[in-house]
Parts: sequence; structure tokens; C-alpha cells
Amino acid sequence: MASPEIDALTQALARLPGLGPRSARRAVLHLLKRRETALAPLVRALQAVEANMSTCDTCGNVDTRNPCGICTDSRRDVSQLCVVEEVADLWALDRARLFPGRYHVLGGRLSALDGVRPEDLNIEGLVTRIAAGGVEEVVLAMNATLEGQTTMHYVADRLEKLPIRITQLAHGVPVGGELDYLDEGTLAQALKARRPVS
Amino acid sequence: MASPEIDALTQALARLPGLGPRSARRAVLHLLKRRETALAPLVRALQAVEANMSTCDTCGNVDTRNPCGICTDSRRDVSQLCVVEEVADLWALDRARLFPGRYHVLGGRLSALDGVRPEDLNIEGLVTRIAAGGVEEVVLAMNATLEGQTTMHYVADRLEKLPIRITQLAHGVPVGGELDYLDEGTLAQALKARRPVS
Repeated sequence: MASPEIDALTQALARLPGLGPRSARRAVLHLLKRRETALAPLVRALQAVEANMSTCDTCGNVDTRNPCGICTDSRRDVSQLCVVEEVADLWALDRARLFPGRYHVLGGRLSALDGVRPEDLNIEGLVTRIAAGGVEEVVLAMNATLEGQTTMHYVADRLEKLPIRITQLAHGVPVGGELDYLDEGTLAQALKARRPVS
Repeated sequence: MASPEIDALTQALARLPGLGPRSARRAVLHLLKRRETALAPLVRALQAVEANMSTCDTCGNVDTRNPCGICTDSRRDVSQLCVVEEVADLWALDRARLFPGRYHVLGGRLSALDGVRPEDLNIEGLVTRIAAGGVEEVVLAMNATLEGQTTMHYVADRLEKLPIRITQLAHGVPVGGELDYLDEGTLAQALKARRPVS
């Protein structure tokens, strides 16, 4: 029914995570009804990102600058390095400015199933970066999944000989979590890592 | 943390219906990771729509052609006209090719609260269109809300003198609906309009 241009736009939007065919159609209608206030700004914003985006050669973050805004931020503590699987993890951690240091994106996790081997991840870059000096602590912030933890242990082994402190995220009951709904693994970790009431 | 360009894109996407700040951020990451397969096609699709979109002078549909694809479709039955509140309603009805005729978009509904008066809707255009001849039936497909039904009765009154059949959508139990969960108004309508088991 709709024109090929509108169909193409609906399909392009429907491929975004969080949008399906129905919500993409609603989004297209929203854009068509607000040509100046919604459609035009979105086109401009996408063009700006498309024209300028690049991957940071230092940390693997995606930004419109290279090196990225985090790597060039002089207020950041260069002695702390947080290693994550994906850019999404970096953004999640950095959103609340939780970590004062810099990051290193591996670009995935080791996975026998998906055929991801150590050489497919940016582990060499990490070793080189640490060997260049200045880093005192490396926080391994992989996902608490089997593959994430496998990757963490592999990276920890690779960094073992370097004169740095290697830490990992704490496991336990998530804030707001109800014991009733938690899996046994989480409960076991939370119990194992219990600490005096402060 | 992110560059101004990425922030601007996140905000533009977050304003789409169905997307919030979190899902917009996920969508941006998705686009950044897939520059050739996701970002570029979306930019092209948006540009094509922005360059070509217009409102159909005949029916009020939004399309990249004017008159729109429906109004110029010679396979459509010109004797049937379906009047809807918004372009979204037209698309919803036409998605499954349920209606063989053409449409007329009023551009809203009468609303004392929002200050929408009859002259704010495209009712004159509807009268002119019918007066031009060829239309035998007008289906008033307004929403089953108070304002939608008020609008329907107003439009029906305006068309009363014209030599056409005026119909409205059936009310009743939606397909898949459970009586248990339906409101009294729907149940009353479904009971009133009951028909022999066929």
C-alpha cells in the first residue's frame, strides 16, 4: 500500500533492536507527521554520525573522534584500566561515571560455539597497552556468563606476569533483588562473599 | 561521555514512539556496529522519504506521491469510501487489504477538551468529494471512543442529505477476546447486536 520509500524506511527501522514491524510503522507515521521537528533532526543526526564515526585505535570504543573522548580526557585516571567485552558494556559502565579510569574493549568473548578464539579478540592490544606502562590496576568487567567468565580467566592468565593488580567485579545479590527470585548460583556467590554488617 | 553527534542521535531516536533513552542507546550501538548494513540504509531510506513525502490532496494520506498510491490505484472500488480519523487508522485498515475502496482522513477527532472544532477537520473536503459523485457508501470508521463516536455522529449528520449509504464499524467482542476481561460497554454492544449462529 505505502510507497516503496516508506516501505524501505519501515523495514530499516524495524531492524533496530527494540523495534518490530508494528512499532516501526508507528515510528514512520510519527516522523511523517512531524517533518520539521522529528524527521529532519533525525536525518541530520544520522548523517553527522555516519560522516564522523570511527573506532578508537587505543581502546576500541566507538566515537566520532579517534582517539575517543574517554582516551583523550585528561581528568581520567590512567593507572586504572577496565576491560569489557563490548562497546555496549563500556557505555553501561560509563553512563553513571562509575569508573574513574579508562577502558579496553575486547570486541567479544571467547566462545567455542561461535568459533571465537583468543586471536579474534583485542587481547594483544591490551597486553601492549599495559606493557607501555602507567597502568596499575586492571578491572576485568566481563559478563557473569559462562563465556564471559571463561574470557576473564583467559585474560587474567595472559596478564599474570605483568606487575599489575588484576581485579574482577563482585558477584552477589543485585540491588533491589529479592532472594526468592534469584538463582542458586547468585545466592551461593553472595553467601560465599558475605561480609560484616557495616 | 559520548560525542555530541552520538548524543544528538540518541536523543533523536529516543523521541520515536516505542523507544526510550535506554533502547535508543541500544539502537545507536547497533547502528555504529553495522555501518554498512544498518546505518547507511537507514540514512538513505530517511533521506528518500524526507525528499519525497507529501500529503495526498484527495484523501489526506501521507505518501511519496500526490495523489497517493491508494487514490491512483485503479483496482480500488471508487463507490466505497472509508472515513478515518488519522493516517495511522488508514494504514491499520489497509494493511490487510480489508477494505476494497478508498479512504478519507479527517485529520483528528472533535474534542471540546483539545479545542478541535468541525472546521479543524477535513469534513468540507469529504462533502465535496462525495458531491462530485461516484460514491455509493461511506463507512465511518472512527475509534470506538467517546470523541471518535461524537465525530462519527457529527459527520453522519453532515452527510445525511446526500444520496449515499452511511455505515459504521460493528461493535462487539474482539476476536480472541475473553468475556471475563471485557468492559460492560463492549458486552452490552455484543449482546445487542447478537445474531443467529451460522
